[in-house]
Amino acid sequence: MTGPLGFDVDPWSLGLTGVDVDRLAHRESLFALSNGHIGWRGNLDEGDPRGEPGSYLNGLFEERPMPYAEEGYGYPEVGQSVINAPNGQIVRLLVDDEPFDVREGTLARHEQRLDLRAGVLRRDVEWISPAGRAVRFTTERLVSFTHRSIAAVRCVVEPVDEAVRVTLQSDLLANEGLEDVHHDPRVQDALERPLEPVAHHARGGAATLLHRTRRSRLGVAVAMHHVVERAGAAAPSVSTDASDDLARTTIVAELEPGERLEVVKLVGHEWSAELAPATLRARAEAAVDDALRDGWTGLAEGQRTRLDEHWACVDVEVEGSPRLQQTVRFALFHVFQSAVRLELRSVPGKGLTGKGYEGHTFWDFEAFVLPVLTSTLPEAAAQALRWRHATLDRARERARHVRLGGATFAWRTIDGRESSGYWPASTAAFHVNADIAAAVLHYVRSTRDIAFEREAGLEILVETARLWRSLGRLDPDGGFHLDGVTGPDEYSALVDDNVYTNVMARRNLEGAAAVARRHPDVAARLGVHDDEIEAWEAAAAAMVVPFDERRGVHPQSARWTEQARWDFEGTREDEYPLQEHFPYVELYRKQVVKQADLVLALLFGHDAFTLDEKQRDFAYYEPLTVRDSSLSAVPQAVLAAELGHLELAADYLAEAATIDLDDLQGDADAGVHLASLAGVWIAITAGFGGMREGEDGLSFAPRLPPGTTRIAFGIRVHGRVLRVEIEPERSTYRLEAGEPLSIRHFGDELELTAGEAVSAPTPPLEVRGERPTQPRHRAPRPFREALGDGA
Amino acid sequence: MTGPLGFDVDPWSLGLTGVDVDRLAHRESLFALSNGHIGWRGNLDEGDPRGEPGSYLNGLFEERPMPYAEEGYGYPEVGQSVINAPNGQIVRLLVDDEPFDVREGTLARHEQRLDLRAGVLRRDVEWISPAGRAVRFTTERLVSFTHRSIAAVRCVVEPVDEAVRVTLQSDLLANEGLEDVHHDPRVQDALERPLEPVAHHARGGAATLLHRTRRSRLGVAVAMHHVVERAGAAAPSVSTDASDDLARTTIVAELEPGERLEVVKLVGHEWSAELAPATLRARAEAAVDDALRDGWTGLAEGQRTRLDEHWACVDVEVEGSPRLQQTVRFALFHVFQSAVRLELRSVPGKGLTGKGYEGHTFWDFEAFVLPVLTSTLPEAAAQALRWRHATLDRARERARHVRLGGATFAWRTIDGRESSGYWPASTAAFHVNADIAAAVLHYVRSTRDIAFEREAGLEILVETARLWRSLGRLDPDGGFHLDGVTGPDEYSALVDDNVYTNVMARRNLEGAAAVARRHPDVAARLGVHDDEIEAWEAAAAAMVVPFDERRGVHPQSARWTEQARWDFEGTREDEYPLQEHFPYVELYRKQVVKQADLVLALLFGHDAFTLDEKQRDFAYYEPLTVRDSSLSAVPQAVLAAELGHLELAADYLAEAATIDLDDLQGDADAGVHLASLAGVWIAITAGFGGMREGEDGLSFAPRLPPGTTRIAFGIRVHGRVLRVEIEPERSTYRLEAGEPLSIRHFGDELELTAGEAVSAPTPPLEVRGERPTQPRHRAPRPFREALGDGA
Repeated sequence: MTGPLGFDVDPWSLGLTGVDVDRLAHRESLFALSNGHIGWRGNLDEGDPRGEPGSYLNGLFEERPMPYAEEGYGYPEVGQSVINAPNGQIVRLLVDDEPFDVREGTLARHEQRLDLRAGVLRRDVEWISPAGRAVRFTTERLVSFTHRSIAAVRCVVEPVDEAVRVTLQSDLLANEGLEDVHHDPRVQDALERPLEPVAHHARGGAATLLHRTRRSRLGVAVAMHHVVERAGAAAPSVSTDASDDLARTTIVAELEPGERLEVVKLVGHEWSAELAPATLRARAEAAVDDALRDGWTGLAEGQRTRLDEHWACVDVEVEGSPRLQQTVRFALFHVFQSAVRLELRSVPGKGLTGKGYEGHTFWDFEAFVLPVLTSTLPEAAAQALRWRHATLDRARERARHVRLGGATFAWRTIDGRESSGYWPASTAAFHVNADIAAAVLHYVRSTRDIAFEREAGLEILVETARLWRSLGRLDPDGGFHLDGVTGPDEYSALVDDNVYTNVMARRNLEGAAAVARRHPDVAARLGVHDDEIEAWEAAAAAMVVPFDERRGVHPQSARWTEQARWDFEGTREDEYPLQEHFPYVELYRKQVVKQADLVLALLFGHDAFTLDEKQRDFAYYEPLTVRDSSLSAVPQAVLAAELGHLELAADYLAEAATIDLDDLQGDADAGVHLASLAGVWIAITAGFGGMREGEDGLSFAPRLPPGTTRIAFGIRVHGRVLRVEIEPERSTYRLEAGEPLSIRHFGDELELTAGEAVSAPTPPLEVRGERPTQPRHRAPRPFREALGDGA
Repeated sequence: MTGPLGFDVDPWSLGLTGVDVDRLAHRESLFALSNGHIGWRGNLDEGDPRGEPGSYLNGLFEERPMPYAEEGYGYPEVGQSVINAPNGQIVRLLVDDEPFDVREGTLARHEQRLDLRAGVLRRDVEWISPAGRAVRFTTERLVSFTHRSIAAVRCVVEPVDEAVRVTLQSDLLANEGLEDVHHDPRVQDALERPLEPVAHHARGGAATLLHRTRRSRLGVAVAMHHVVERAGAAAPSVSTDASDDLARTTIVAELEPGERLEVVKLVGHEWSAELAPATLRARAEAAVDDALRDGWTGLAEGQRTRLDEHWACVDVEVEGSPRLQQTVRFALFHVFQSAVRLELRSVPGKGLTGKGYEGHTFWDFEAFVLPVLTSTLPEAAAQALRWRHATLDRARERARHVRLGGATFAWRTIDGRESSGYWPASTAAFHVNADIAAAVLHYVRSTRDIAFEREAGLEILVETARLWRSLGRLDPDGGFHLDGVTGPDEYSALVDDNVYTNVMARRNLEGAAAVARRHPDVAARLGVHDDEIEAWEAAAAAMVVPFDERRGVHPQSARWTEQARWDFEGTREDEYPLQEHFPYVELYRKQVVKQADLVLALLFGHDAFTLDEKQRDFAYYEPLTVRDSSLSAVPQAVLAAELGHLELAADYLAEAATIDLDDLQGDADAGVHLASLAGVWIAITAGFGGMREGEDGLSFAPRLPPGTTRIAFGIRVHGRVLRVEIEPERSTYRLEAGEPLSIRHFGDELELTAGEAVSAPTPPLEVRGERPTQPRHRAPRPFREALGDGA
């Protein structure tokens, strides 16, 4: 059974048979491996053909010029782009004198499989060379969860029917020649060969390359070592050469039928802005030496153990839709591996699966991914939030530069410096600061990590609260307004009183005040005195949330609902995404929503709106929301579920879950959409689970997606694990260990004790209003069609 | 008597003694000569030292890339930059073997004088070479008003006391090496050597260079010819050489005391996108041959005759302030010479006096300069409006591209294609279209040029009216709104219902309807039917002009007055202009006005506001207007005068008049501010003259600037000339010829008959309200101080 794009359907893996050379880049993104420090795209081992080679180290980037047709004060002059670290993936195979290439000879078998329990990407090839020599070539690849700097490849070559001479060329390749990096030749210049060689070393089956980026001056060391674990009767020959940009170990073996050549390649990666080359080299080589002791078996066991532990706590089980089961686990796997070994870094919008968005991290990490990490992998959430804290000096400097108070975090960045080239949709999108603050508050509430709150959290809250105070204005009636900002929806900009921004800023101000009062010693150290705290509370209390009395709905921003409505009927299907066919000047002045904005406020600020308001707002915005962004379907799924539109919620869930598998946005070549994948978990837990988190703890209102018979999910809270099981007639809650926990089920309080399952019945579904409609051509696919398994 | 920056005070010239090498660029702009086709900056004849060499041909430009840090739909990809045509100004002098250089030897005398009646720039030098040889070197230079393609230089060299050998090297120099053309290397590449050599010719005392621009593919031919009109006893030797980028005629003479070498250099210029090189060459040489028949004397007489005629009709006479007299004539001279020989071209923001704004023309040409041309040089106004008409196809294409109806003219351009790199302050500034429409309506009303109205005017009105209809939206109460536009004030952007835009668009719609009804045959040819005309009328009638009831003033745009007020008290003097010290994100969301916007509406839409509204609006906006743009002082002057604040009006008049002479904006190096210079005429006629033009003809309410005793000005109307003379107690109107004309004087109708002066008394001054204040550090200089002559 295969899904729409040819992947088979399996609860614990994603498999693909055959090679479609034109779609390689897409598959490389899906099959990418990562641990949050290293990212290896799923390139074919032999390096060619390829979609886009990718071997990334989180935080390793090059600077590039930012060109402007017309300059303006405060425009960033230096941009940042992710670059490829020296690539250790490559293992080329020669059979006799013929190089293995999937486009030549006969490919009798070709299967790739990402194993979501083993944490390994496997490939199984049977190839008959143009000269008629048949070999079986199997590889396994991992990016280690237990050895942060290590990625590894295990290759096995076996003759099928007659003796062959087999050569493996295993490379470390730096500065791979890429074409069309950027259409601006200055940027192209900066990024084409970003690595300056510093040194290279080779010895036995090992080698190390040392480089430095030309402009950002970051050092990078990549070391490799080969273990020929078993072979035929004759010992294979092994030799290694290194030059500036290439180290190569060549292994040659004569194999009789029944014999095999088995090689394990261990690759260690280090980079640093400060360390000396000799230190970097030593660390990369030490990582390899350390991994050598574990060997392939140890590394692979480490993967499985770490994943077993993860799945045991937070796996999402789906019964009744095998494809939904698969896509949900695929999504959670990518979220997990994007962050499991984070150390004081953020996660880019594409994780480490591609160079999309230039490797930048955006607000949607804190808004969509970080809450999921907080609930499933809290130690990674802490690392990411501590990274934001580490960029506070840059955020303060940016605020000073744009003449504001407090701190304003970068809209898009790798190292914390603002790297946006279009200020109306970046500098003005101040909500990123409230999103970070919300992530801080949620993390602390979920984890009770008071050390973090004192060391980092409060300072983030204080500086962002200061920003809002400096941004706001009081009207003559005492209302507090935020003018001239941009909300999440990128088809509007520079608006007044964006509801999402104001609601989130209010929470930011309230949170800063509450936490400052909780830690007066830390607050005092940050220069916070009572009058400032009171001013935050006053601003929060006076925050204006506009409401359109005439239409009975919240406008996305002040007077937004008075604008002309977009001509959806006159817009052709091929004119989406609109931003590629219409100028901002048209988009900005009309009622058309790229991505949930007011509806996102209904989700993230759920307690600020009545159910009745949610119903009217959702009904109003659904026909205006075109979902030209991958950040839209998830909040729409949650609101649809909350209002009882379970089919619609399932449609949006399916869209979020298949966005990369089915390449719905046409850009998965450049990496997966991590926020959308994280959103799958949100759509299930907050959407179908009805899970909300507030001052009074967790509440649930569980429902099943139509056609499914059981869904179970887990959530980490206060160091405990809560498993929730949804069945048609009832839900069951089970606290795995720890102190008792009080939750609510459809408003009823349930007291949970460790190890004891508590069930409660599902009340009849209340559907609020008609199922809302979407703009012409923009309704989501029905989930049964999207999932392709009659779910 | 000299003014603040060292220019002497003379009613008919601008003179300067000595050379300040650090301020050369500024003086080159002031001393620039032009005829609307050719522009020669006032560079020293010998080419060095120089501020910025300038020899421009109106419409000759090179294309250049437009870089963006983040791309967007509809962003122009190709920019346009004015370039230097091969430079024919240069005449280098050698005295014996020593090159004349103002920085070497002894400069016993150095005077430059721009003669506003003769239309000639004179230079008078006495130089003692380092070897002690003394010569007198006088040059005169003109850009011909009678021979459109011709500029000429007359040089005279005389030994002072002993015999010398004198060499004149007269150059045509192409692709002069400029430094720092642009900080973007791609733009630098495009503009550094923009001219490809095509051919060169030399014969006798003549030469021609033929070039083509590399990207824009425009051909340019420049020819020169030398006439050695008189010399010493021994005939001078004359030889000419030419190569790709340089043609040089060398004239050597041995001169005894009392003898002199006199050389006239004629330079002919042609450029074209279509003509073959041979044709271009032929035309440039024919222009020179034609000018040869007139000789220097004939050319100089042509200048004076043309200016005599101009001054006789439209000179502004000022008594009681010699410096105001001089600055006003200087301003009018620049306006005249910027346009007198226009042929289907516009006038750049800097005229042809410098490469500021890349040689682009903007809305302020139609808004500020064109009305002055219409009233003083109407044939030039027609040429400029016909040029806009000729760009209609590009404006229609641009409208289609940005998904709008009708046509949207380029915000900044040389050839009609949009060349703006920042859309919020260009594409969104749709008012340019209404400004052009207003210029059409004013031109036709003033000239009764019905042929123009039928051939060009109506089509402009129709296509711009269509634009407004496609831009607007109707509210549920039937009001017509223009959302998401940018008005004249560049410290606000993307606002709703900008009052200036709405008032001007309303006039545009009304005008299109009225003119279409007047010429139903032309309208039908343009596809205009009655229902479309009625729709324009309906939109105009329903146009919303927002009003702030709470504050009793018009907001600059909807709800603008609700924004936070800029912190003027906390802004240091050195933080102006604000855009160089604050980001747009701060400027846009606060009440701070770069340049008159609502106040410009009060001027251009004067009949849409009551006097009481004007008083309250002006009092409200004065304290918010920082005049970081040269386009601000003039409308402020007019409104101040209308409200009886004559001292303030005089302060603003003085600011407009001295903006370049005193380099108030610090950028006169790159050319004069033509709109501000034209605005001097507006400040005098509309401001102190109280002149308004409406459906019922011209009205006046004349007052004198404090300290002046008499002002007289002339205006062309319906082919006639009306002279207005303001004295303290009365004004006198005199129609020079033609049909009788009815005007109003302080509301009283006066019937004027040709040749008969009609006087009427000046009623007592009514001052409306307190003199408004300006932001701290931004009050205009008192006019007596600005004019430096105790006026």
